[in-house]
Amino acid sequence: MHPVIMNRKFERRKTRRIMVGDVPVGGQAPVSVQSMVKVRTAAVKAVIARIRRLEETGCDIVRVAVKDRDDADAIRTIVSKVRIPVVADIHFDHRLALRSIEAGADKIRINPGNMTDPGEIRSVIKAAKRRRIPIRIGLNSGSFPATDGGSKEDSMVRSAMRAVRMFEQADFNNIIISLKASDVVSTISAYKKLSRLCDYPLHLGVTASGLPYEGAIKSAIGIGTLLFEGIGDTIRVSLTGSPEEEVWVAQRILSALNIRSFGPEIISCPTCGRCGVDLVRVVREFEKNLKRTMKSSDSQNRPVTIAIMGCEVNGPGEAKEADIGIAAGKGSGVLFRRGKVLRRIAEKDFVKELLKELRRLT
Amino acid sequence: MHPVIMNRKFERRKTRRIMVGDVPVGGQAPVSVQSMVKVRTAAVKAVIARIRRLEETGCDIVRVAVKDRDDADAIRTIVSKVRIPVVADIHFDHRLALRSIEAGADKIRINPGNMTDPGEIRSVIKAAKRRRIPIRIGLNSGSFPATDGGSKEDSMVRSAMRAVRMFEQADFNNIIISLKASDVVSTISAYKKLSRLCDYPLHLGVTASGLPYEGAIKSAIGIGTLLFEGIGDTIRVSLTGSPEEEVWVAQRILSALNIRSFGPEIISCPTCGRCGVDLVRVVREFEKNLKRTMKSSDSQNRPVTIAIMGCEVNGPGEAKEADIGIAAGKGSGVLFRRGKVLRRIAEKDFVKELLKELRRLT
Repeated sequence: MHPVIMNRKFERRKTRRIMVGDVPVGGQAPVSVQSMVKVRTAAVKAVIARIRRLEETGCDIVRVAVKDRDDADAIRTIVSKVRIPVVADIHFDHRLALRSIEAGADKIRINPGNMTDPGEIRSVIKAAKRRRIPIRIGLNSGSFPATDGGSKEDSMVRSAMRAVRMFEQADFNNIIISLKASDVVSTISAYKKLSRLCDYPLHLGVTASGLPYEGAIKSAIGIGTLLFEGIGDTIRVSLTGSPEEEVWVAQRILSALNIRSFGPEIISCPTCGRCGVDLVRVVREFEKNLKRTMKSSDSQNRPVTIAIMGCEVNGPGEAKEADIGIAAGKGSGVLFRRGKVLRRIAEKDFVKELLKELRRLT
Repeated sequence: MHPVIMNRKFERRKTRRIMVGDVPVGGQAPVSVQSMVKVRTAAVKAVIARIRRLEETGCDIVRVAVKDRDDADAIRTIVSKVRIPVVADIHFDHRLALRSIEAGADKIRINPGNMTDPGEIRSVIKAAKRRRIPIRIGLNSGSFPATDGGSKEDSMVRSAMRAVRMFEQADFNNIIISLKASDVVSTISAYKKLSRLCDYPLHLGVTASGLPYEGAIKSAIGIGTLLFEGIGDTIRVSLTGSPEEEVWVAQRILSALNIRSFGPEIISCPTCGRCGVDLVRVVREFEKNLKRTMKSSDSQNRPVTIAIMGCEVNGPGEAKEADIGIAAGKGSGVLFRRGKVLRRIAEKDFVKELLKELRRLT
């Protein structure tokens, strides 16, 4: 995948660059998209099939849960059969971290909420150092011990920084940090505070955000607010749904903020009493065709905009600014390409003509 | 509807209070949710039916497009048959504004991008003043004249402030302002700049954001980022889809930021290789049942949280913090109510037991 980095209208926070396999995270690298395999890691064949599907959607980094020794050992085969870096997700038992590192994981995630013994953590650090792989210090609101008096986000930040200092004392800086809460406001506040305390790359996410549509809204607010402030180096959208949908939502968030492009973007109006065509049908049909076309196209990541607008109020303006646009009137519309009027077309030809112009463009 | 105002963890910007019918906007009033009717306004019966449907979903203010004199005249009947305030959306022709005011519109939206004659605008102001209704100065990126050298958002802000000064010179302060761009970053930047220049309430929205799912993501980032900064007094999510869906998305945005509650919120994990139950099925089924239960319930707007979690990592923590929660293990789970363990239940009973506890709670 060759992500197109678009002009950003806002500054990104300066962070160190950490390598997760061959994917750079932080240090002005493109904000990477992560997801997680949702079947048992020891089911190697199923895991590989799912990771390959994720690779096709443009996922940059994938995580697998390591619950027991079989899961840890499975990583050896998995990393040899997939292209993207594989992160081992470890809770409770540091020996599973050691075993995952041994099996060739590209990164380890540990949770300071359930791995607290300094000796055990130091042994994981030592193993990661030897293999030159990074460790994510990953806090979650749900696995966080009782707060120490202050707000939950302050406790999370303090706990993360305690872990960071322990890692630094062991002369280890190959660190990424996350502070995910299920509450959007706490999540944003925690990351904002942490971002002022260190320059390690931050992995953003709202945890346990629920079913896809609602979870996407929560994640878009949480992750989007931070990205707009320049905070965040890699993101994971957590949905009670498929990993592919998580990647799609993450990509839409990055695209909406002009941080990365993942193919054509449709600008279409909500319609109102002024609209003289069946715009919802047109846009739906165009989008469906677009997805089909894009799958077999090299130009998948071109930041092309297509405006499909229902009336003369905002239609000509948006259509002119887009790469291709239609400003509809009653039963027909004016087709634009890069600001120039091409011709008037009938409503029934909208989709066909848009696709034709798109092909000409790319 | 009796929205529950939840504890906000962030300050809201101080704005004047403007009354739209009986709905206060600004001045620390609850952030109201708007939508728009998408059929021709002169089709009075259809419009009334749609507004009633919107009232049921909890929409606070509705807008109708006024394209001609029939649309303007229709407002008289519409306002007499619906409960929520009706806003007349005017472009190009100031006489339609005058006629809509005459017909009893609760607010007028004009667009400085296509109504520029000072004399015409002053006549609209005069009529609004006589009827004591507010005017929204509503700019859109798609109906905005060529930028005056600087960025689009700067031009939009300048144009809005020029209009504001004209209104103020006519001794009119009953103003709400919007600056919607189809680009999320421009939208956020424009509102942030404007918020520092005046204390009129701001109507937030990302214009022409596209089909529902993608448009919801864009709107969540744009509106959410601003709300998190305390900016925004009323919101409209513009989707190429149904007005009901626009309202639902707007409510989810407000709920995610703890600004208002619109009924139970589900916290559910994304599942991973650790999960020993079919969590996606459970959450989907629970949500479906919940929607049915809530429709016939008075407790619709209670800020109840239900956590449905797949394993022992974050499960017990989130389940304990929620009003009702399940932390699942292999084929079963532990049921919590307000931090206390109730009992262990089988996977097949998850939905039933959650609904039972929810009824007990409310």
